[in-house]
Amino acid sequence: MSATPLIDRTPSAYGYPLLVKQLLHTPLASCPEREIVYRDRRRYDYRTLRQRIGRLASGLQSLGVAAGDTVAVFDWDSHRYLESYFAVPMMGAVLMTVNVRLPPEQLVYTLNHSRARALLVNVEFLPLLASIRDQLETVERIVLLDDEERAPPAGGFSAEYEALLAASSPEFDFPDFDENARATTFYTSGTTGAPKGVYFSHRQLVLYALAMSAALAGAPGQGRIHRGDVYMPMTPMFHVHAWGIPYVATLMGLKQVYPGRYTPDGLLQLAQRERVTFSHCVPTVLRMLLSDATASQADLRGWKVIIGGSALPMGLAEAALRRGIDVFTGYGLSETCAALTLAQFQAEPDDAAHGLALRTRAGWPIPLVELRTLAGNGGDTVRGGAGEIVARAPWLTQGYFRHPEASEALWEGGYLHTGDIGAIGADGCLQLTDRIKDVIKTGGEWVSSIELEDLISRHPAVAEVAVIGVRDDRWGERPLPLVVLRAGAHADADAIRAHVHAYARSGAIPKYAVPERVLFLAAIDKTGVGKIDKKLLREKYQ
Amino acid sequence: MSATPLIDRTPSAYGYPLLVKQLLHTPLASCPEREIVYRDRRRYDYRTLRQRIGRLASGLQSLGVAAGDTVAVFDWDSHRYLESYFAVPMMGAVLMTVNVRLPPEQLVYTLNHSRARALLVNVEFLPLLASIRDQLETVERIVLLDDEERAPPAGGFSAEYEALLAASSPEFDFPDFDENARATTFYTSGTTGAPKGVYFSHRQLVLYALAMSAALAGAPGQGRIHRGDVYMPMTPMFHVHAWGIPYVATLMGLKQVYPGRYTPDGLLQLAQRERVTFSHCVPTVLRMLLSDATASQADLRGWKVIIGGSALPMGLAEAALRRGIDVFTGYGLSETCAALTLAQFQAEPDDAAHGLALRTRAGWPIPLVELRTLAGNGGDTVRGGAGEIVARAPWLTQGYFRHPEASEALWEGGYLHTGDIGAIGADGCLQLTDRIKDVIKTGGEWVSSIELEDLISRHPAVAEVAVIGVRDDRWGERPLPLVVLRAGAHADADAIRAHVHAYARSGAIPKYAVPERVLFLAAIDKTGVGKIDKKLLREKYQ
Repeated sequence: MSATPLIDRTPSAYGYPLLVKQLLHTPLASCPEREIVYRDRRRYDYRTLRQRIGRLASGLQSLGVAAGDTVAVFDWDSHRYLESYFAVPMMGAVLMTVNVRLPPEQLVYTLNHSRARALLVNVEFLPLLASIRDQLETVERIVLLDDEERAPPAGGFSAEYEALLAASSPEFDFPDFDENARATTFYTSGTTGAPKGVYFSHRQLVLYALAMSAALAGAPGQGRIHRGDVYMPMTPMFHVHAWGIPYVATLMGLKQVYPGRYTPDGLLQLAQRERVTFSHCVPTVLRMLLSDATASQADLRGWKVIIGGSALPMGLAEAALRRGIDVFTGYGLSETCAALTLAQFQAEPDDAAHGLALRTRAGWPIPLVELRTLAGNGGDTVRGGAGEIVARAPWLTQGYFRHPEASEALWEGGYLHTGDIGAIGADGCLQLTDRIKDVIKTGGEWVSSIELEDLISRHPAVAEVAVIGVRDDRWGERPLPLVVLRAGAHADADAIRAHVHAYARSGAIPKYAVPERVLFLAAIDKTGVGKIDKKLLREKYQ
Repeated sequence: MSATPLIDRTPSAYGYPLLVKQLLHTPLASCPEREIVYRDRRRYDYRTLRQRIGRLASGLQSLGVAAGDTVAVFDWDSHRYLESYFAVPMMGAVLMTVNVRLPPEQLVYTLNHSRARALLVNVEFLPLLASIRDQLETVERIVLLDDEERAPPAGGFSAEYEALLAASSPEFDFPDFDENARATTFYTSGTTGAPKGVYFSHRQLVLYALAMSAALAGAPGQGRIHRGDVYMPMTPMFHVHAWGIPYVATLMGLKQVYPGRYTPDGLLQLAQRERVTFSHCVPTVLRMLLSDATASQADLRGWKVIIGGSALPMGLAEAALRRGIDVFTGYGLSETCAALTLAQFQAEPDDAAHGLALRTRAGWPIPLVELRTLAGNGGDTVRGGAGEIVARAPWLTQGYFRHPEASEALWEGGYLHTGDIGAIGADGCLQLTDRIKDVIKTGGEWVSSIELEDLISRHPAVAEVAVIGVRDDRWGERPLPLVVLRAGAHADADAIRAHVHAYARSGAIPKYAVPERVLFLAAIDKTGVGKIDKKLLREKYQ
């Protein structure tokens, strides 16, 4: 086969690298007067945003920050953070969003590992900074972020943010460069080992913003976001860059509201005052909002809220719907920049219960996302079968920063491995069922520990159950239920096996999921936050 | 400055080239049962579309078509055309959409110039093909397209399309390759010289599809396209690949309806039967539809129709609105792949008249499009001032095929020159005023001939007027009005000048637009189709 010719580019043609700065063209042309709001402190338009982005870049340059440097930000959600989302990558530097909730020793590790050269630090984190300052190996400049715009305290600060902007020119000639240049980085706090750095290029952020805005807007009704919406993040901007939605909101030209540090009544009051219609958060934040005193009087109708981070419980979804909130799930990981799927209805649900169920599933892939579910043998599962979710999309981290082994494991076989188990239904909707580390691999097939636990817990004598995989010479692994009986009740392994076997006969689970052994315990080990400690259980009962 | 580091890619990571095949992931995952309809002839779902794309590629390969070859299609709008939009680029070949209305000698020129190796030809064009067949220098294979699926006549045909697909495997392993590979090409028929070939890469088509779907869907209300819409092109698929909308519609997973050869009642009946809600066309087609007998009974409400190609007259827009059609303008050229702007309301119009006016303007840039209006001196016009519209976007042709001088002229200064004069209003809305070749450049400023003609035509003695630019030693050019007086009326140059001067005094036009000379004629030369022949007038009265 002859090779496909590449397009000729005449010398004067503009090749148009996909750079973060290009996201600003449309909002500046279409709605330059739309507002950016920070609490009750500041309010300005997109034209001013663009000028402040220029000022921030000029100011950072005057402090010696150059292309290739990493600039780390410690802040609550603010207009300053939004400005740094643009100015830092646009000048060719790398924005590091710092998870301020990491333990101090992990903070030190990530700042040194990323070679952060400059810090932008909210005054509230100065005690934290003081406690780690002498362990930071690469930091040369620190800019203070303070709502009160006070001069920085003595000792090591280069400037206060607003003073720096006031003294700097809005004219900064943001250069063109390779669209594969690193734009952002942040660290995932895995359960084991040191945090791992993921990173995203300009090209990836632009493609994510385009695809996500097409997905969000394309819904016929439920879950639809449009250019008249008002956006307020409720997933912190330091966490997976607020799922990348500030880039999406800016490209779409939405009014944007930044709430500072989250408090339930603060979020609610601001949302009401600024008529917020589009947010995203973890289930815990939504639950807090709904149970806050202020919420009972608040009119929450028409607020579109995407839930991610962990599964949206049916009861919480129902409570939100009763208040008129259009709540639905988005699924993604730190490694996927943000979303892979959204649970916007693809067709009208059969009834309210079906609609409710769909909202709590992971949903359908957004444009350009290719999803597969892999069986234990590495091939595709049968349609509807549970398997590890793997993905391709143009915005997935291409590795972990300076961590080649973990990078190769993440991308084994050319697909990003999410570590989640899920099934794609007949309607194409993805449903998550398990974390892969909790799944039992037996004879090349996978058994869901969560599914088995659910079935065994229905036995009348069972008070609590955890199912773990234990090594088996023949099958690789076999499921082992750990059972705590109800006070006064009794059952033996045969009874539990017979109970599970009935589900296998009815086809609810495969035959190979029926355990041979059952272990009865007085109590099941828990973690500090009260979750079943499967890691410890696997070690103890191996 | 240190260089910005590019992102590391671990060896196993998938870099995700932007290829046309990637547009199919989402619709296949989300709505595989949605329909593609061809007249009353054929109806199948996206799953079948994907299989037929595989079959077409296998079939073309069996005929010797390879990556890098150009495959030219002569067809009316059909499912076959849609299949070739995907299969041909996806196999690494180049799709050439043939403008079947070009004069035969230009057809020959474009097919030879593009080195077309295979043709797909609708049976209706066999007489045309026969008349040019012996002048085609590169064509080796011809496939017959026939709704009746008859065997091809004797002489030079390789296969009939449906028979070829039936004999070919749906399994075709579409390879990955460079996203800058040429995917499509077609020829613009300029008013002078040979047609010029424009070309678009896989990357460009994917980025256009993403940005256009984000733009179309993001509208709060007026002009909004969503995943529940039903699409039918009414700009032919051989013309600027139907503005690229078949790619957009496929990415969005819309039901798609292909009408074959356009007839007013055929389009209307099909639109009604299949409940079409989204189309695009030139003003002439809309006018034909509205005046067709069938239209008077048809329910056209909720049909969103984008108008391009030439200006949407206010009266036509009003007539369409009265019938419930949501009509609005899109602006683009062959050179821009398709759209640069859309006239979806950015804010609620003040009243019906304002809304009507907005629909007839060119509108606002779609995501990633950067627009400028350049004054005669090459700098930006003042806000609101008319100038040549130049653009950057990731999907603009990077030159004319094998035509280096014209390519450099197109991209002079790093912006694509549209050849149109327009002004960007205070609301950011682009309004076209002129073609640049009809504009008069005087003393580094531009004067709109159309604007001057409009003003002069308001003088009671003037029956007809054309304004041309004539050479001037001091100013470069000066405007020269050519005036035909009404029968019985009289006026001299002073009267006309005084009339124009009054507008200059009121600020409606600049002072330098007032002509020194006025020429009175008995008649103004026209072209064959009755338009004022400015080219001839410029030659005659220079």
